[in-house]
This record gives sequence, structure tokens and C-alpha cells, in this order.
Amino acid sequence: MTTPPPDLSGAVDMSHGGGGRAMARLIRDIFLRHLANPLLDQGHDATRIDAGSGHIAVTTDAHVISPLFFPGGDIGSLAVHGTLNDLAMAGARPVALTAAFIIEEGFPLADLDRIAASMGQACRAAGVPVATGDTKVVERGKGDGVFITTSGIGVVPAGVDIGPRRLRPGQAVLLSGPIGDHGIAILSKRQGLEFGTEIRSDSAALHRMVADMVAVVPGIAVLRDPTRGGLSATLNELTNAAGVGMLLDERAIPVRPEVAAACELLGLDPLNVANEGKLVCVCEPEDAETLLAVMRNHAEGRDAALIGHVTVGQPGFVRMTTAIGGQRVVDWLSGEQLPRIC
Amino acid sequence: MTTPPPDLSGAVDMSHGGGGRAMARLIRDIFLRHLANPLLDQGHDATRIDAGSGHIAVTTDAHVISPLFFPGGDIGSLAVHGTLNDLAMAGARPVALTAAFIIEEGFPLADLDRIAASMGQACRAAGVPVATGDTKVVERGKGDGVFITTSGIGVVPAGVDIGPRRLRPGQAVLLSGPIGDHGIAILSKRQGLEFGTEIRSDSAALHRMVADMVAVVPGIAVLRDPTRGGLSATLNELTNAAGVGMLLDERAIPVRPEVAAACELLGLDPLNVANEGKLVCVCEPEDAETLLAVMRNHAEGRDAALIGHVTVGQPGFVRMTTAIGGQRVVDWLSGEQLPRIC
Repeated sequence: MTTPPPDLSGAVDMSHGGGGRAMARLIRDIFLRHLANPLLDQGHDATRIDAGSGHIAVTTDAHVISPLFFPGGDIGSLAVHGTLNDLAMAGARPVALTAAFIIEEGFPLADLDRIAASMGQACRAAGVPVATGDTKVVERGKGDGVFITTSGIGVVPAGVDIGPRRLRPGQAVLLSGPIGDHGIAILSKRQGLEFGTEIRSDSAALHRMVADMVAVVPGIAVLRDPTRGGLSATLNELTNAAGVGMLLDERAIPVRPEVAAACELLGLDPLNVANEGKLVCVCEPEDAETLLAVMRNHAEGRDAALIGHVTVGQPGFVRMTTAIGGQRVVDWLSGEQLPRIC
Repeated sequence: MTTPPPDLSGAVDMSHGGGGRAMARLIRDIFLRHLANPLLDQGHDATRIDAGSGHIAVTTDAHVISPLFFPGGDIGSLAVHGTLNDLAMAGARPVALTAAFIIEEGFPLADLDRIAASMGQACRAAGVPVATGDTKVVERGKGDGVFITTSGIGVVPAGVDIGPRRLRPGQAVLLSGPIGDHGIAILSKRQGLEFGTEIRSDSAALHRMVADMVAVVPGIAVLRDPTRGGLSATLNELTNAAGVGMLLDERAIPVRPEVAAACELLGLDPLNVANEGKLVCVCEPEDAETLLAVMRNHAEGRDAALIGHVTVGQPGFVRMTTAIGGQRVVDWLSGEQLPRIC
């Protein structure tokens, strides 16, 4: 089987960073083509590595958000939470983080201090240290304030084997809480919008909740955090990877009224809006109630809900029963809806 | 003991990224102040983590070089080599890398492809895979082509314990080969300078040579790669951390004639110029000849030399017997000599 060579005549545009189809194509045509190996081919945000006597998980994330400070967090806490969550989504217990800063010349030291303080606080709250770091400075106009790339290392408990190839028709799809908070918080800060109530990012570390979930149900099939591209991108990636379908129930998907109102005003679908403190869990139907109870026992999963099921039909397609009783396809976007969101 | 609060009224300038005193102050006053923990306090480029049954090493590096392509390499191969070398400097056997790309809108896909291809080739040559990655795109004018942050995970063999606190007066200081090649290669490309012979970067992975060194002499005290800030910054950091001095012999420090000539022309001291394929090894004097023989057995260490000794006097000061028989202090720079070099 030969693959035609990709078309490389163009240039990178913002859609390549948006978490949609264009980004998936860029990764496949350039990064996977040159860097393919069994570890990378696992296709997770966190990759499991056999370190001899046990399995470790490793993940990396570049944070390029704008604005750097937003209701409910900042780039520092977000970088810590995002990486802890990527490890948690592999079922791993986070052991350590690394942090690399790319700082633009002229960035105020007081702002850098505030960001580092926020990272430190998030690390202490999570019980996971930054083990090593790097600092680079670029000339004015060659960066955007500060970019932070965090990597994370975790240990995968014996018996835990989480991944899209374990998806099977009939399994339950759980969501840990209301969607869209992070994207709308960033957007409202960026555009100077006011929606009456302040909408705060849901940025939070989920590893403790996941540890409890995995302890009670080690056989969880999939865990994913619906960040860039939102819930729709996450579920489309999963169903594409597994060759299954999904059927969701729109009425079961929690969305805060103020987020729903903001989305309507802005012409956005909350399913496409980024989250930073939510997870999707796919499990055997008989484990759903147990896992929902565990999740609801944590502040981060208080509003957890069963939102749908894995289906046989139309592999790669996510369908949704709408609030008015019809059905529609939950598509993922081609490019970016909200760039620089996480 | 109370430390006065740092002065945070200023802004980041290019000297904060140069690998000299200003950067050391920034890291101490902001990052270490907020993120301090026993792992980070190890103060290595790669940090050892006790993962239960064994020790793993972890490191991270943001690569922001300009130009992206240079004689002897490009940002892709450099990112792989730099991270492998940081692991090797902890005596670790590299297991996996991660790669996070921050790409500027408008960057040619063909250039991105060339960089990814170069990374892939460097990984295969090194026998270490990229295990996971991330891709972010920033708007035109908010980045500079492409930045790559690589992190690395390695396994530390039992019995290996490398670190500046093991420095003792009388130990030998070895250097694996001629210095200054990388910095001069980048600078000549950047400024369009011609020096007769093309000066190529020494960018290379050192982990195989280090594995042989550690196998023969597990008691090596310190390994360091003299990158940003050059040999002088590396030796000043070490002596400062250990509270010892060093006495070097200028005639023993290998510098290629064309690099020496270029440095003279540009008013640079080769001791301050970055390297990407060299290491400094400090060992017991009786192990020096054995280690030099092992190094000279590898292409990367063919010109390895004994360049000096650890001394008692003047802790934190590196002195050098000059070619004409005098002595001078080998100081590190306050800020940057050549920004965006690695």
C-alpha cells in the first residue's frame, strides 16, 4: 500500500492549530510521517512507556494562550492542570512535571512572577512538583508575552489499560460536568464581553478524581479531556480511531445557562468550545452508575452525567438526539473556532 | 534567614536568556522562588526521579534558534541532540523524547517537513523515539517560524550518581573536543559571514559515548554539555555550585584554527561560545587516561583532552594558565553574547 506524498506547497495557517481536521492532517502528513514509531502510534495525549519494571506515561503540551490571565486562572495554572489531566487520561498517577518558558523581550517581570506563583500553587495543590525547567528569551515581536511548554511523567497502575481500541458498541459515555466554561471565559476576557454573571474557566486538575475512578473500576475503556475543539472533536477522534459510532442525548449534556446564552449570542456551539477541567469516560454500561457516584463525590465531577452510548452503525460518526427529538451529526470543525484558547 | 524580596519592577530583556548571570538571577528570583522542591533543587539539566523500582531522569529544553537551518544541522536535529545530551549528562540511558511545536502562521509546510524529517533521522540514528507531541499555531508576528520544546526521559543505571556536589580538589577536568563550532556556525550563517572554510555545527548525540564512559568508570563525578554561555558558563556554574575552584591550561583546550580565527575577527572568546556536541567530564585523576581513551574511541570524542583540575582556592573561581604563561580569571558573561543560539 503506497500513500501519495502530501501536498507541501502551502503554508501553516491558524486552522492548523485549531484541533480540527486541518490539524489532524498536518500531524499525519508531516509529524507522523517522519517520526512514526510504536510509542507515538499509540495516539494518546500521554504515551505509555515500558520502563523495565513498570509502565510510565509521558505527555507534553505547549501553552500559547491569549490572554495570559483570565477569570478562573492564568497560563501558569492552566499549564499545570492541562498536563496533569493528560497524564490522568492515561490512568496514570502523575509523578513530576517539566516546564520550559519562551519569554518575549520586554515582558514585565511582575507578570512572570505572578505566573510562576500560580504554577507553584497549582503544583502544591496537586501534590506534583516541577522537576526541571528551561528559560529562553526571544526578541520583541518574535513571541507573545510568554509561552509555557509543560511535560509530565506518570506511573500507570498495573492492570490499567486505557485506549480507544477498547471501545465497543453498548458502552456508556460519561461526562464529568458542564461544557464550554473555559472557552467562553477566555473569549469574554479577550473580547471585553460582559455576560452579566462572570463566566470562569473550569481549569482544574482531575488526577485525584481519576485515581478514585480507576481504583473502583480498573477496566475503564477510555478517558479523555475535551480541550481544543471541545467535546465534538474529542468524540470524533475517539470514534474515528476505534471505528465505532456514538449516539448522544443533547438533553443529558450539561451546559451552564450563562454559557449557553453566551454561545447563542456569539454563534458558537458549546460542543465545539474548549474545556480545561472536564473529562469523558467510556465504560461498560454496568459500571456507569458506580463511576458517576465516584465522580460526583469530587468537586470536579459534581455534575457528572451519562450522555450517550457507543454504537455499531456508521463508524466514525457521532450522532445526537436533539432536545426537540430529532437527530443530527455532531461534526468536528475543519479548522479553528477559537485560536489560542489552551 | 530571610531573603529580601527580588526587584520585579523591570522587564525581561535579552540578557535574561543568554545563559549568564542575568539568567541565573531570573531563575533564582522567580522560578526557583515559586517552584522550589527537592527535585528542582537538584539543579541539573536533567532531574533524577525515584520511580519506585528505579531512577528515571527527566529534562526539558525550548529551542528558539535563528536561523532554523545552519551548516551541520537544523532546529530539528538540534532539538533531538540537545535533549539526548541533557539526559546523557545525568548518566542516563535515553528512553523516549516528547516534542511540542509552536508554529507561526505562514510558516512554509515544506520547511516544517524538512525539520520533522531531520528530527526523525536524528531519532533513528540515536535509537530513541519521539513518544508524544503537541502542535500549536500562533498568529503571524507572535512567533518566529517554529519553536520546538523537547523533553526527554531516561533510565539511570544503578550506582551512577553524577552531580556537582561530588566535585573535590584534585579531580581532573576533561573536554571531549574543540569548542565554539556551533556558535560560530550559527553566527556565520546569520550574519552571512564567510571564513574560507565552512564552519559546521558540532551538533551530535553523546549518549552512546557516555554509556561507554559510565560502564568503564561508574564513579564519574560530573558530566556537563557546555551549550549556552559556552565552556566558561558551564565551569563557573559547576564551581559555584560546589564551592571549589578550577585551574585550566589554555594550551590544552582544543579550538579549531578556523574557529579561533573567526572568534578573533568577531571579538569573541571561544570559551563563551555555545557547543552542541561536546561534554565536560570531571573524574578522579587516576581515571582520566581511561576515560580519554574511551572518548577517543568515538567520533564525538576523537579530540578529547585533559584541560585542567579542580582546586581548593577561591571557591567559584575558574582560573586559566594562558598560552603565554600568565594566569587569568575565566569569567562568565552577565548577559547574552549570542542570543537565539540553541
